[in-house]
Amino acid sequence: MREIRLASRPSGWPTADNFDLVELPTPEPGPGQVLVRNRFMSVDPYMRGRMNDVESYVAPFQVGKPLDGAAIGEVIASDVAEVPVGATVLHGLGWRDHAVVDAGHVRVVDPAAAPTPSAYLGLLGMTGLTAYVGLLDIAQFREGDTVFVSGAAGAVGSVVGQIAKLRGAKRVIGSAGSAEKVRYLVDELGFDAAFNYKDAPVREQLRAAAPDGIDVYFDNVGGDHLEAAITSLNKFGRVALCGAIAQYNDTAPPAAPRNLALAIGKELTLRGFIVGNHSKRMPDFVAEVGGWLRAGQISAQETVVEGLENAPEAFLGLMRGENTGKMVIKL
Amino acid sequence: MREIRLASRPSGWPTADNFDLVELPTPEPGPGQVLVRNRFMSVDPYMRGRMNDVESYVAPFQVGKPLDGAAIGEVIASDVAEVPVGATVLHGLGWRDHAVVDAGHVRVVDPAAAPTPSAYLGLLGMTGLTAYVGLLDIAQFREGDTVFVSGAAGAVGSVVGQIAKLRGAKRVIGSAGSAEKVRYLVDELGFDAAFNYKDAPVREQLRAAAPDGIDVYFDNVGGDHLEAAITSLNKFGRVALCGAIAQYNDTAPPAAPRNLALAIGKELTLRGFIVGNHSKRMPDFVAEVGGWLRAGQISAQETVVEGLENAPEAFLGLMRGENTGKMVIKL
Repeated sequence: MREIRLASRPSGWPTADNFDLVELPTPEPGPGQVLVRNRFMSVDPYMRGRMNDVESYVAPFQVGKPLDGAAIGEVIASDVAEVPVGATVLHGLGWRDHAVVDAGHVRVVDPAAAPTPSAYLGLLGMTGLTAYVGLLDIAQFREGDTVFVSGAAGAVGSVVGQIAKLRGAKRVIGSAGSAEKVRYLVDELGFDAAFNYKDAPVREQLRAAAPDGIDVYFDNVGGDHLEAAITSLNKFGRVALCGAIAQYNDTAPPAAPRNLALAIGKELTLRGFIVGNHSKRMPDFVAEVGGWLRAGQISAQETVVEGLENAPEAFLGLMRGENTGKMVIKL
Repeated sequence: MREIRLASRPSGWPTADNFDLVELPTPEPGPGQVLVRNRFMSVDPYMRGRMNDVESYVAPFQVGKPLDGAAIGEVIASDVAEVPVGATVLHGLGWRDHAVVDAGHVRVVDPAAAPTPSAYLGLLGMTGLTAYVGLLDIAQFREGDTVFVSGAAGAVGSVVGQIAKLRGAKRVIGSAGSAEKVRYLVDELGFDAAFNYKDAPVREQLRAAAPDGIDVYFDNVGGDHLEAAITSLNKFGRVALCGAIAQYNDTAPPAAPRNLALAIGKELTLRGFIVGNHSKRMPDFVAEVGGWLRAGQISAQETVVEGLENAPEAFLGLMRGENTGKMVIKL
């Protein structure tokens, strides 16, 4: 088997030197464990934070040890009746082509219920749940709201925009980093407006796209996007703080919203969240989003990169915004 | 009668030149109006924002027109049965010694129910309600929370800290701008800890005063206080954004919390509010805080300045933090 280890901690942008690809004998599962042949693994922006030696909501990766993260695969050895050989399972030991996992730490899923097994890493997985919880519970989205989402062509952002439309938003606006992505948002996902944040200041482009202001901002980016959103937010506006990819590789203190005091008079709410504490919403999410998926009402576009050896470069591309929709590695 | 008008709009810190004291014949009330001899008027930090020509949650003051704000006085002419001569009334036409007010815009209060009529401008008025709503509803204070309040010796802050103690806070920490205020907070108001923010960085002093972190931050100040609080906030911490006096006189964009992205992993909630939209809580507030006042459990210290002509200088002193507790002008 092969696995990718953290060779060293990056300062600022990671490079290929921070990762090591290692070959090992394929391990044997012990009692109560299963051996999984991983088919897809997830790369996610939050993994950048885990490369730092900083205690956060997930433990940092350890130098010399394999990285981990969401993966889906097929059980190839098991003596656990509930997780038999042949089962498709979701688990947390990505960044390797084979994994020995405690049977209690896998979730058996039905591969026939998804267009591709990798959907369990994206639209039907934590990514989709993040969008669902962030929009509906954290930002308290209501029918008729005007919604702005940054990183809108990304894994979470693309689902946020689609859920907002399906749930009756008045207007959905997205920002992304290329003309192609902007077209994708409007032509394929049905956003009402979208702009390339590299073309002109976010504040100006957002004001033009939302002349009557916005009610909800779903923040995947931080920085100037958050500041622009605070300016455009209407009275009693709500912000779901989900990510700040613009600053994950910063070494200096990041730009901060200089206009945060506007939150007083506008009576805004800004609320940070991580999806891990919201798994109780999984049944609602699966029912609603799964239904939209079966009805062909929601798109689950993915950017698929082949080969474990290409995972570090794919992860760096994700940080640079090279993906459209969820980025997964096919193993 | 005399009134104070806005002579010109300040840029940065106001000066005496921005105010005009004008003498006029005392006006006659029309039908449905009453003439009030004002006894006390309020000066409040939010008035600084109204001196700018910026539409906010309250309309800006107009150059050449009198300022306004909360006042309490005695009705000296009236043909309205519900608001007879002799009644003590609370209304919105301060910054003058006599006021003609529509009877529908006054609230008759019982002067015997308060230690001094000016308490209706402070502890028993909008100031107290701001503290009550901000702590309990906006910051969702819960028994056992550790609470940090900035501007803690001020009108709102001193009430926030006392309510938190009375409602069962684990620990209440305040910041203020002098050694004397720090002593007042600890010795007279029962704060568990307090510090002078001019002595050392807020972040360091807060960490020392709250080694186990804080659960609630009531922000009257903004700037470095907000940034320090974000660093010290525990998981699921809550911030009531009430004021940002540190930056009201800034002409450059203010310092912003560079660490706002911590709100994601800590799942913080920051919520701005203004008291005007929370008057439905007035009965609960009056019952609870009035009860504490009658029982001698809550202090309503005031800084009283005599004379309408001294109101502009008192207002400037308020912006410099020269008051302890609520600042009122005795007319």
